[in-house]
Amino acid sequence: MSVLPVDSLETPRFCGVPTFMRLPQATTLAGLDAAIIGLPSDSGAPFRTGARFAPNAVRAMSIMLRPINPYRNINVFEALACADAGDAAVVPGYEIESLERLELAVRAVVDAGVTPFGIGGDHSVTLAALRAVAARHGPLALIQFDSHSDTWDKYFAGKKYSAGTPFRRAVEEGIVDPAHSIQIGMRGSLFKADDVSQSIELGYEVVTTDEMFACGIPALAARIAARTAGRPAYLTFDLDFVDPAYAPAVQTPEAGGPSAREALDLLRRIEGVNLVGADVVELCPPYDQPAQITALLAATVMAELLALRAACKA
Amino acid sequence: MSVLPVDSLETPRFCGVPTFMRLPQATTLAGLDAAIIGLPSDSGAPFRTGARFAPNAVRAMSIMLRPINPYRNINVFEALACADAGDAAVVPGYEIESLERLELAVRAVVDAGVTPFGIGGDHSVTLAALRAVAARHGPLALIQFDSHSDTWDKYFAGKKYSAGTPFRRAVEEGIVDPAHSIQIGMRGSLFKADDVSQSIELGYEVVTTDEMFACGIPALAARIAARTAGRPAYLTFDLDFVDPAYAPAVQTPEAGGPSAREALDLLRRIEGVNLVGADVVELCPPYDQPAQITALLAATVMAELLALRAACKA
Amino acid sequence: MSVLPVDSLETPRFCGVPTFMRLPQATTLAGLDAAIIGLPSDSGAPFRTGARFAPNAVRAMSIMLRPINPYRNINVFEALACADAGDAAVVPGYEIESLERLELAVRAVVDAGVTPFGIGGDHSVTLAALRAVAARHGPLALIQFDSHSDTWDKYFAGKKYSAGTPFRRAVEEGIVDPAHSIQIGMRGSLFKADDVSQSIELGYEVVTTDEMFACGIPALAARIAARTAGRPAYLTFDLDFVDPAYAPAVQTPEAGGPSAREALDLLRRIEGVNLVGADVVELCPPYDQPAQITALLAATVMAELLALRAACKA
Amino acid sequence: MSVLPVDSLETPRFCGVPTFMRLPQATTLAGLDAAIIGLPSDSGAPFRTGARFAPNAVRAMSIMLRPINPYRNINVFEALACADAGDAAVVPGYEIESLERLELAVRAVVDAGVTPFGIGGDHSVTLAALRAVAARHGPLALIQFDSHSDTWDKYFAGKKYSAGTPFRRAVEEGIVDPAHSIQIGMRGSLFKADDVSQSIELGYEVVTTDEMFACGIPALAARIAARTAGRPAYLTFDLDFVDPAYAPAVQTPEAGGPSAREALDLLRRIEGVNLVGADVVELCPPYDQPAQITALLAATVMAELLALRAACKA
Amino acid sequence: MSVLPVDSLETPRFCGVPTFMRLPQATTLAGLDAAIIGLPSDSGAPFRTGARFAPNAVRAMSIMLRPINPYRNINVFEALACADAGDAAVVPGYEIESLERLELAVRAVVDAGVTPFGIGGDHSVTLAALRAVAARHGPLALIQFDSHSDTWDKYFAGKKYSAGTPFRRAVEEGIVDPAHSIQIGMRGSLFKADDVSQSIELGYEVVTTDEMFACGIPALAARIAARTAGRPAYLTFDLDFVDPAYAPAVQTPEAGGPSAREALDLLRRIEGVNLVGADVVELCPPYDQPAQITALLAATVMAELLALRAACKA
Amino acid sequence: MSVLPVDSLETPRFCGVPTFMRLPQATTLAGLDAAIIGLPSDSGAPFRTGARFAPNAVRAMSIMLRPINPYRNINVFEALACADAGDAAVVPGYEIESLERLELAVRAVVDAGVTPFGIGGDHSVTLAALRAVAARHGPLALIQFDSHSDTWDKYFAGKKYSAGTPFRRAVEEGIVDPAHSIQIGMRGSLFKADDVSQSIELGYEVVTTDEMFACGIPALAARIAARTAGRPAYLTFDLDFVDPAYAPAVQTPEAGGPSAREALDLLRRIEGVNLVGADVVELCPPYDQPAQITALLAATVMAELLALRAACKA
Repeated sequence: MSVLPVDSLETPRFCGVPTFMRLPQATTLAGLDAAIIGLPSDSGAPFRTGARFAPNAVRAMSIMLRPINPYRNINVFEALACADAGDAAVVPGYEIESLERLELAVRAVVDAGVTPFGIGGDHSVTLAALRAVAARHGPLALIQFDSHSDTWDKYFAGKKYSAGTPFRRAVEEGIVDPAHSIQIGMRGSLFKADDVSQSIELGYEVVTTDEMFACGIPALAARIAARTAGRPAYLTFDLDFVDPAYAPAVQTPEAGGPSAREALDLLRRIEGVNLVGADVVELCPPYDQPAQITALLAATVMAELLALRAACKA
Repeated sequence: MSVLPVDSLETPRFCGVPTFMRLPQATTLAGLDAAIIGLPSDSGAPFRTGARFAPNAVRAMSIMLRPINPYRNINVFEALACADAGDAAVVPGYEIESLERLELAVRAVVDAGVTPFGIGGDHSVTLAALRAVAARHGPLALIQFDSHSDTWDKYFAGKKYSAGTPFRRAVEEGIVDPAHSIQIGMRGSLFKADDVSQSIELGYEVVTTDEMFACGIPALAARIAARTAGRPAYLTFDLDFVDPAYAPAVQTPEAGGPSAREALDLLRRIEGVNLVGADVVELCPPYDQPAQITALLAATVMAELLALRAACKA
Repeated sequence: MSVLPVDSLETPRFCGVPTFMRLPQATTLAGLDAAIIGLPSDSGAPFRTGARFAPNAVRAMSIMLRPINPYRNINVFEALACADAGDAAVVPGYEIESLERLELAVRAVVDAGVTPFGIGGDHSVTLAALRAVAARHGPLALIQFDSHSDTWDKYFAGKKYSAGTPFRRAVEEGIVDPAHSIQIGMRGSLFKADDVSQSIELGYEVVTTDEMFACGIPALAARIAARTAGRPAYLTFDLDFVDPAYAPAVQTPEAGGPSAREALDLLRRIEGVNLVGADVVELCPPYDQPAQITALLAATVMAELLALRAACKA
Repeated sequence: MSVLPVDSLETPRFCGVPTFMRLPQATTLAGLDAAIIGLPSDSGAPFRTGARFAPNAVRAMSIMLRPINPYRNINVFEALACADAGDAAVVPGYEIESLERLELAVRAVVDAGVTPFGIGGDHSVTLAALRAVAARHGPLALIQFDSHSDTWDKYFAGKKYSAGTPFRRAVEEGIVDPAHSIQIGMRGSLFKADDVSQSIELGYEVVTTDEMFACGIPALAARIAARTAGRPAYLTFDLDFVDPAYAPAVQTPEAGGPSAREALDLLRRIEGVNLVGADVVELCPPYDQPAQITALLAATVMAELLALRAACKA
Repeated sequence: MSVLPVDSLETPRFCGVPTFMRLPQATTLAGLDAAIIGLPSDSGAPFRTGARFAPNAVRAMSIMLRPINPYRNINVFEALACADAGDAAVVPGYEIESLERLELAVRAVVDAGVTPFGIGGDHSVTLAALRAVAARHGPLALIQFDSHSDTWDKYFAGKKYSAGTPFRRAVEEGIVDPAHSIQIGMRGSLFKADDVSQSIELGYEVVTTDEMFACGIPALAARIAARTAGRPAYLTFDLDFVDPAYAPAVQTPEAGGPSAREALDLLRRIEGVNLVGADVVELCPPYDQPAQITALLAATVMAELLALRAACKA
Repeated sequence: MSVLPVDSLETPRFCGVPTFMRLPQATTLAGLDAAIIGLPSDSGAPFRTGARFAPNAVRAMSIMLRPINPYRNINVFEALACADAGDAAVVPGYEIESLERLELAVRAVVDAGVTPFGIGGDHSVTLAALRAVAARHGPLALIQFDSHSDTWDKYFAGKKYSAGTPFRRAVEEGIVDPAHSIQIGMRGSLFKADDVSQSIELGYEVVTTDEMFACGIPALAARIAARTAGRPAYLTFDLDFVDPAYAPAVQTPEAGGPSAREALDLLRRIEGVNLVGADVVELCPPYDQPAQITALLAATVMAELLALRAACKA
């Protein structure tokens, strides 16, 4: 099974239906190490919507990326047999049913022994992915980059499932082990005085944006590795982690975040994590015109996560 | 209770929080003839989403409109005590619960003896409004402007409620009387060979875009009045009725429709209809930048519907 | 003095600082028949603003136009010695002083025996131009294409000068002869019951958009020529005359107007008018992105007005 | 070989990598009747560029279309075995080499006995396609919808190949038979007095936009059929044929064209043409944001061309 | 009087006409501590215009903010009785009259003992606000964040009042005490060699962007407090203080500024200032599409200023 | 010959056809020290295209800049006689011929003893400029700011000339002396393992983005001066050097770069370089709407390069 991307020095990037980084579309999962899978649900979005279009928007910009990661000195696609597995089908306007379908789709990947790399979607899609991955690997160490903790109990009309609640649900369901998990990047105004403390009470380690800069990026990378050591880890990257200047097209932008360079630097310094799944979420393409820099950043983050997985395997 | 809009010759239109046509915000429904009410749900949207932002987008452009309608020679707000009643609360990502909340909000207006003029939202919001209005007035004559009939039985995962199904549901629920109802503007490619015939089988009169032009606008206006005669009527205007050039920011644009002038001409010629409710739906503001001509058209259509109501009352 | 535009078959249109239709920039007015002059004031704008950027926006799109007008079968720039005279300087935020500066700039053109073709600017710039042109030619026959009559007496805070009042002021100042003048295209909602009748009372002939279609375009062209016969004529084209689909980027769009083709057809059929000045106004470039079709239409209208002038001279 | 599109009532349209109308991607050409093929070259573009992104932009909007064409009462994909054959590779910045590669790609389709439906690309790509199709079918009857005749002899620096010259080259190369060919839609200003006459001298029948309306759409459809009778026909649709309001995102917009409804009506009325190839060209996606109505129109036109082919086969 | 915002965990943020942070609209000023007031004038804008739309643009994005400020550990709206007082009326195109009306509107707030928080508008609106606030509190300590000093003597045509002159006028009028005032953020090219020195000659302390980074943010916060000690202070935040990447939609962007995080960090560290008025100015909404990150930053800055006021009161 | 720009305190910046920084248009090169020249070719662009519109886009934003550079304490236009020399003509779609025309145009400037400051254009235009400048000054010291090294041997179809190859060609042609040249800013994923080493093998000093931050900006500025000492230097600034947040509208954006402030700081600290030519390239205006911050940054960088030249002369 050929799993090398199209050569962009031979065929211009704009030629052909775009898959993630011009990888082959998966016709089978057999023999793959990793699969890109779109999770195009935005039924959990409390404010801006349109993340259903994110997987294809990320694909469209990912064609600019090249296979070699110089930060880890690795050709990702030689180290890792990868393909683009297409998208999960969802049921727009039906959050519960969408989560079920998303879980089934990720489970098919995981059950084939393939590491899923999801493109969301609002942040509730991560709950579906965590369920699928934990079904195979047991309770997971969660590494969450996000400006919001998403650990509310309920949202509108007392609903338990939305983009604001997945990381409380995941603890309740026992699929995330908070004692080995860490949330990084919280900032901005809060609904209630206990917005951050509620995450801590759930057992998460919480690093606010201010604490991130006080700690320094190399030390924080080490802290992530230490926190998650000994556990299969799932990394979720909400694009609102960075400042809106770098990621304008997200569902709930929050002013005052780190730069793209700082975020990538942090990702590139993480080592020794046993990554069994990952996603990049909350891209909202209708707000990304015309230069689509948020989609490009999402694709770049995803490429770094693949490189992290490749480095761990190597 | 003062129900005259702010005078735009004195205070510039851009001053102040925008209500529909600068009307007062309703603090009570008592004494009103008509109320504008936002129905900001897009959980039923099968493709583009973001109609949740439509009510405020329409308000923002409606401030350009003036109170006198020269086509009916009437000062709408002298003839009709109007106010902006704000928005129904909805539950994003939960279509069924959203319909329930929308129905309750419209019912509060209707129960106060006030005619509701709704701003959607995806087209499923009309089902909620029809339920509320029919609860008071009985089975309604429906006048639907739309490029799609929206009479499918089911959508994704067999779901009965979405923007593609309200006008089958309404017949099944007995809140629309298809024998006095008419659908105008169908065009474009179809899912199945019976897409149009299914509407006819349900009892609707169907006028395609081609038939509309063959018939002529004055004759069609008369045909609408004749079809709905003797019944309380509900008029729903899906903005994809017109060509995407005039309404680019809709959920499911369909190339090849009438112009805004033709659509307005048709509305202005309708007479003798007993209008007990109306809405303008499917505006999708994220796709309306920067000139917002779809929102302006939506506001203009709404102003014509208010004028129709005012003329009927006079 | 060379007055032929750059040849776009030799040098690509995007090369070089853009002047109107790639004409030479005027270093002197001597020997010219006609001059393009920017009137970049938006101090009179009651709603959307930004028309100060219109002259250069029109120039940027005008480079797509070619010198031969096939409708009048004439090479405009062989018939007419033309140049781009740059822009009048204005005083942003000071309407009165801006009108004074605009008048001086147009007067310099007129005094040199050159016909001015102005690019506005909000519609109050036409008052300045009318003053300058009438100073040489006496009371003018006005041909106004517009969806609003702009004959209000006062605007905010009782101000006499704004985009809403120039054509009342012009009658009061005796620089327009309403008995030979015509306003075409009025439509939409009104502030007061006498919005249209006030124009008629001032002496203007008024043709609403509906009447325009009832009359037919060839007959209306003849009616314009008849109305203005025997008088030096000034033609002003407010881009909101056409539907917002064709001219989204105007200060005060009005839904339901004619198409660009209908507008151009009407202009192309006008004959026998003694054109001594003209302008195209109310383009609001910040709302014209990304395709800039309003600026292209403005440039095309201007080219037609030059051809009308050329045909009259021939 | 399954050649039915994905069912959009089951799987939301936004799920999955978008192919044209959600057709299968061709893994072989054997057994196909028709193939969609992207021709992503813009090296011939004299003004706006970016048409290299057109094939994927058209695909992205084509997912809104449905398989049944009610105007011809046909399920296109039951009548015609279709697939999406991906894109030709091109050499950006090298017009001659790009034409060679495009010709090879189309020739592969044609040689397999499959009718090519190309998505351009600037209009020079049609020359490459004509070469490939004529190699099999002999001199072709050309049906060209366009606001420009594109029959110049040379462009910048005396170059023979660009978007302004293909239909002179095609006559010179003997691959188009002008005596059976027709150009429709010419309008706007001209470079030289003989812009239109040069097409007539080459042997083309030319119908300007004005003549199109004078003739009437049904009569014009018949005239097209008559002109091309007895010849294998190639239809090329330059999106600047319609007014910029309907197709803002084209390389060289020309104000004052027909509406999308008029254009589609004309296409739908053409009968009895032996269509052996077709294309839709000059979409320039960077100028189509945010609502992408030009891409939607391009997809709709292509669907009509497939329906024309299907009807001819039936 | 209820002064708590709508609960965004119950009612989605997009529901209802947006006020600042979903606060109640003021029906009376009695009992309030602070009032948000729109100052929608752009008559003083020398380049880009459209700031008249800023107050409602800021309101529309402010609905994303939550009431608790974790940096000062305070629930702003429990500490401070706040409401949205709507907008001052202005006279577009008449700078002098607009300043008079703005002053009257702010004075009404101040005279009721309420602290005004203004949303501009071009920077000349600050002069009006300073006049109103100083009328009650005497000469003010000014804290100005800005990339330009705005201390020119005159602008076009010798005009004394525009966005380029307020902080010279304020010193001349004795309403600002420069000996207790500080300007922070100056950078970029200059009109004359004395652009910065003229501010220093007027008595202001001036901190350029380079000096700000040399000094460090904590030290600069202390310096601000020291400079303004003992005086009632007015803080004005021109959004061009930050880099255009973070605030693209300003009137006169200046490349090379601090990030949003650095700006917010500085604001959050200011302590012990007796804030009697504040504003955020120069947002130019037509340039903020589609993601509106400038408006979000403006709202976030305003929320920090409210928190500073609340902390001072506590 | 007057070479002072228009005074923006007298005439508003939006008045008049925009030249670079409102400089005079060159009617002769005699007596000039420096000339701005547009190099509007994008035939070498491998991905996004549209840089042909860059020179005028930069001019349009450059009017915001003022003549005095406070970082070098110099009035640039008093120190340096400058003018805007317009654009080179190019041959769109013909890379080789375009390079020839570009070289001729720059050579005309150089031959007149004037220092050329080019506005690209894709990065291949720099090869043309280097040829012209080296013809007079001999092998040049190259200072390249860029996220990509552009030292590939071939691109699509084995082509030697494109935006990916100029700095290999320049070494091969002997017009750049790599031993005195330096490339700064490389980052992101690579095509092949030797992407960076190939530059080093050619003889360039290479400083990646990470190394730039490790080195520190003052030290790096000194390193640039040391590397290029004793050689006439050419500085080329590819806008993708900075992060896409600061320069979204480039041909091939690369996430994770320095900020605009860091880039400008570096430029402002360079001293003692014998600058004989410079350019700013790869601006892609169709992706820069609506706020045009990339064009503003391009103009600001160019102004800094002029100041560097002026300082060297002084």
